[in-house]
Amino acid sequence: MILLKNVFLNNKVCDILIDGNHLAQIADLIDMPEAQVIDCRGKAILPSFCNTHTHASMMFLRGIGEDKNLFDWLNQDIFPREAKLKPEHIYPLSRYAILEMIKTGTTCFTDMYFYIPGTIKAVEDMGIRGIIPYLGMDFFDDQKTEESIREGIAHIKSPHTNERITKALCCHSVYTCSQKLIQTFSDLAKKYDTYLQIHVSETQKEVDDCIQKFGCRPVELLYQWGVMGPKTLFAHAVHLNDDEIALIKKTGTTLAHCPTSNLKLGSGQMGLQKYLDAGLNLTLGTDGVSSNNSLSMISEMKLAALSAKNKANSVLAGKVDDIFDIATKNGFEAFSIKAGEIKEGNLADFILVDMNNQFLLPNNNLQSNMIYAADSSCITDVFCNGKPVMTNKVIPHEKEIIAGFKDVCAALKK
Amino acid sequence: MILLKNVFLNNKVCDILIDGNHLAQIADLIDMPEAQVIDCRGKAILPSFCNTHTHASMMFLRGIGEDKNLFDWLNQDIFPREAKLKPEHIYPLSRYAILEMIKTGTTCFTDMYFYIPGTIKAVEDMGIRGIIPYLGMDFFDDQKTEESIREGIAHIKSPHTNERITKALCCHSVYTCSQKLIQTFSDLAKKYDTYLQIHVSETQKEVDDCIQKFGCRPVELLYQWGVMGPKTLFAHAVHLNDDEIALIKKTGTTLAHCPTSNLKLGSGQMGLQKYLDAGLNLTLGTDGVSSNNSLSMISEMKLAALSAKNKANSVLAGKVDDIFDIATKNGFEAFSIKAGEIKEGNLADFILVDMNNQFLLPNNNLQSNMIYAADSSCITDVFCNGKPVMTNKVIPHEKEIIAGFKDVCAALKK
Repeated sequence: MILLKNVFLNNKVCDILIDGNHLAQIADLIDMPEAQVIDCRGKAILPSFCNTHTHASMMFLRGIGEDKNLFDWLNQDIFPREAKLKPEHIYPLSRYAILEMIKTGTTCFTDMYFYIPGTIKAVEDMGIRGIIPYLGMDFFDDQKTEESIREGIAHIKSPHTNERITKALCCHSVYTCSQKLIQTFSDLAKKYDTYLQIHVSETQKEVDDCIQKFGCRPVELLYQWGVMGPKTLFAHAVHLNDDEIALIKKTGTTLAHCPTSNLKLGSGQMGLQKYLDAGLNLTLGTDGVSSNNSLSMISEMKLAALSAKNKANSVLAGKVDDIFDIATKNGFEAFSIKAGEIKEGNLADFILVDMNNQFLLPNNNLQSNMIYAADSSCITDVFCNGKPVMTNKVIPHEKEIIAGFKDVCAALKK
Repeated sequence: MILLKNVFLNNKVCDILIDGNHLAQIADLIDMPEAQVIDCRGKAILPSFCNTHTHASMMFLRGIGEDKNLFDWLNQDIFPREAKLKPEHIYPLSRYAILEMIKTGTTCFTDMYFYIPGTIKAVEDMGIRGIIPYLGMDFFDDQKTEESIREGIAHIKSPHTNERITKALCCHSVYTCSQKLIQTFSDLAKKYDTYLQIHVSETQKEVDDCIQKFGCRPVELLYQWGVMGPKTLFAHAVHLNDDEIALIKKTGTTLAHCPTSNLKLGSGQMGLQKYLDAGLNLTLGTDGVSSNNSLSMISEMKLAALSAKNKANSVLAGKVDDIFDIATKNGFEAFSIKAGEIKEGNLADFILVDMNNQFLLPNNNLQSNMIYAADSSCITDVFCNGKPVMTNKVIPHEKEIIAGFKDVCAALKK
C-alpha cells in the first residue's frame, strides 16, 4: 500500500491510500502504518492523460519534411524512411515515445503502427497502458486482405496477456482498406469484445473520393457496413455533415480529436464545440510526432481549446472543464478503463504536479493552468495502475532509453 | 570574457567568445586563457526570444474568468481586480513575469501597463531587456489628456538610464485615446527618437466602431494622424484590409502578432502568411497571461505556425524559418537591438538548450523542434547582454521571487 500524505485535491489537502492498483481511500487524514508514505506537501493530484490517437514508433521522423504538401511530405520524406524500419527498431522507438508520454503526464495511449510486438514490450516495460491494435491495410489486394485477417486474428487470440495492455484491431482507412477487411475486423472486434480503430474523414479529399467511389460519405459507408458502435474509435473526423454526426451519436461511436495534426497537415479544423453540443464521445489524441511534433497532451489541450473557440467563433466554446475531460476521463471511458478521475475505487493512474511551479501560480484555476500555462516541468510524479513510473522527475533507465533511440535514428539514416 | 567551449551552432561544434556584452568571436577553436570557460558539450546555442507585446504585471490574473464573453470577463473579473492594484505591487508581479520569460528563453519584452517604475526596477534586477512605455489612456477626457502628456514627457525625459531599458510611449487604442493624445505621443516619440506602441484592429468591433466614428478604418486613421513609421508598433492588427496592409508596408510600421490571445478572446485569426508575403515587419508577442495564459514564446511559436497554416488553408504557410524569425531577430530589429541571431558583433543575448533533452531528439531540425516540440525543460542557460540570467536552470532568487508574488496575489484577493 502507498499513502499519499497532504496532497491537494480540488484545492483541499487530503490523504489518499493506494491499495494494489486502485485508489482505495480519500480522506482528510488516513493513518496506515504499514503503507509506504509519500510526502505530497505542495503537490496536487490530477488524473493522468489518455492519448487516444498516436503512432508511437514514428519518433525518428520528428522534424522531417516540414512545411511541405502532404503528397510531397509522404513520398519524399516519410515513406522512404519508414521503408527502412525493421521489427527490432520498434521497441527502442516505442520506449522513447512512452518516455515522452510519461514526462507529459500520459499513462494510456492508443497506438496504430506496424511490428506491434516491440510496442507491446515497450508498454509492458515502461509501466503504462496501451491499446495496441493490429494494423490492417490491404490496399484492396486480396492476398493482403487474407494475410491481414490472419495476422489480426493471431494478435487478438495470442495467449499473451497483461492487465495494462488491451489487444485491439485497426483498419487504416476506407481509402486504403477493402470492405472485406474492414467488416471482418469489425466482426472480430465484436466477437473478441475489443476495440476497432480507423482514420475517418481526416481530409476533404477523403470525403470527396469516398463519395465518388461509393456514392456516400465515409461515416455513412461505415454505418452501412455495420462497423460503428461504442467500441469503435474514429480518428480525426474533421469533415462530418449533420447526418454523420447523428449516426455517430446514435451508435455511440468514439471520436479521437487531433487538432495539432489536422492544422499542421492542412487537413482542416474540427468543430469541437459542435460535436460536444451534439453529445458525441470526444477524446483527444496527439497523432504521431511526424505531424505534431510532440506527444504532449498538455500542449494538445491548449490547441484543442483555442481551435474550438476559433472554429465556433465563440469564446464560450472549448471550455476548460470540457477540454480537461476529453484529455482524461473521456479517453479512459472509451476503453472501459476505470481512470481519468481521482475518486475512490478508480485505478491509480494519476500525476502529481508541483503547486509552486512557476507555471501553476497563481492557483486561481488548476485545470486552466494545466491547459493554458503548464508544460512538462510542472509534473513531478506519474503513477499508472498503482505504481510509480516517474518519481520526482526521474524515469528509470532514461539515459539508456535515449541512447537506444539515438542508435536507431543513426541506423535509419544510413 | 566568457568562453563557450564546444557549443553546437548550426549543427557544428564551435567555440564562442563573449567580450563584455557582445559575441566577440565564433570559431572552431578559441584559446583564451583569461576567459571564464563554460563547458557547453551537448548544448546548442540559439538566439533568445523577443516578446513584442505583453502586460507583465497581469500575472496575478492568470486563470481568472475563463470562457467568458469579453465584456463579462473585463467587467466581472479583470477590472475589479485591477482596481485593487497599487504601485508597490508592480515590482513583485513584474519580477515574476520575467522569471517566466527567462525560463522560456525570452531576454527582451515590450510592456504595456501602469505604474511603470516597478516594472523598470524588475527589468534592471532580473538582467533582461525591456521596452517600457508610459501608457496613455485618456478616455477622451481633456484633463486626463494633459495629465498623460505630462507624465509621458516626464518618463521619456527622466534621467534614469540603463542600456537594457528603452523608455518609450504607448497609447492604448483609438477607442480609448483622443486624437490629441495619440498625435502628441507620436510627436514626442519622434522628438526623443523612441518607440510608440498602440493596440490596433484587434477586433472587428474596433474596426466597425472606428468607421462609424471617424469614417475610416483604424490604420487609415492612424496614417492620417501621422503616427505610423518604423518606430511605431501595432499590437494585434488582426483585421486589416489590403489598403491598410499597403499603408503598413509603405510606412515600415511593425506589427506584434499575438495569436493565442486573439483566439482565446475570440478576436479573430490574423493572416500571418498574407502579411509576410506583403513584406510587413512581423514580430511575435504573448500578450498578458490573462489572455494566453502563458508568457512562453515557445508555445506562441507553435500556435503562430499552426494558425498561419489554418488561416491560409495551406501547409506552406507559417514556415519554420519565418516563425523562428518573428520570435527572435524581427523583434530585436524592430527595437534596433543588435540581437536575435548568433553572429560575431551581435549582443550576447542567447539561450543554451540541452541537445539530449527528450523533446529535442532526434535533431533533424532544431528550429522545428523548438517551435513544435520543445518546452521550458529544454533550456538550460539564458544570457542577456553578455551576462547569465539563468545558469543550469537556476535563476537567482527564484524562491524569493515566487514568495513575493504569492504575497501580492494574497493581498489582491482581500
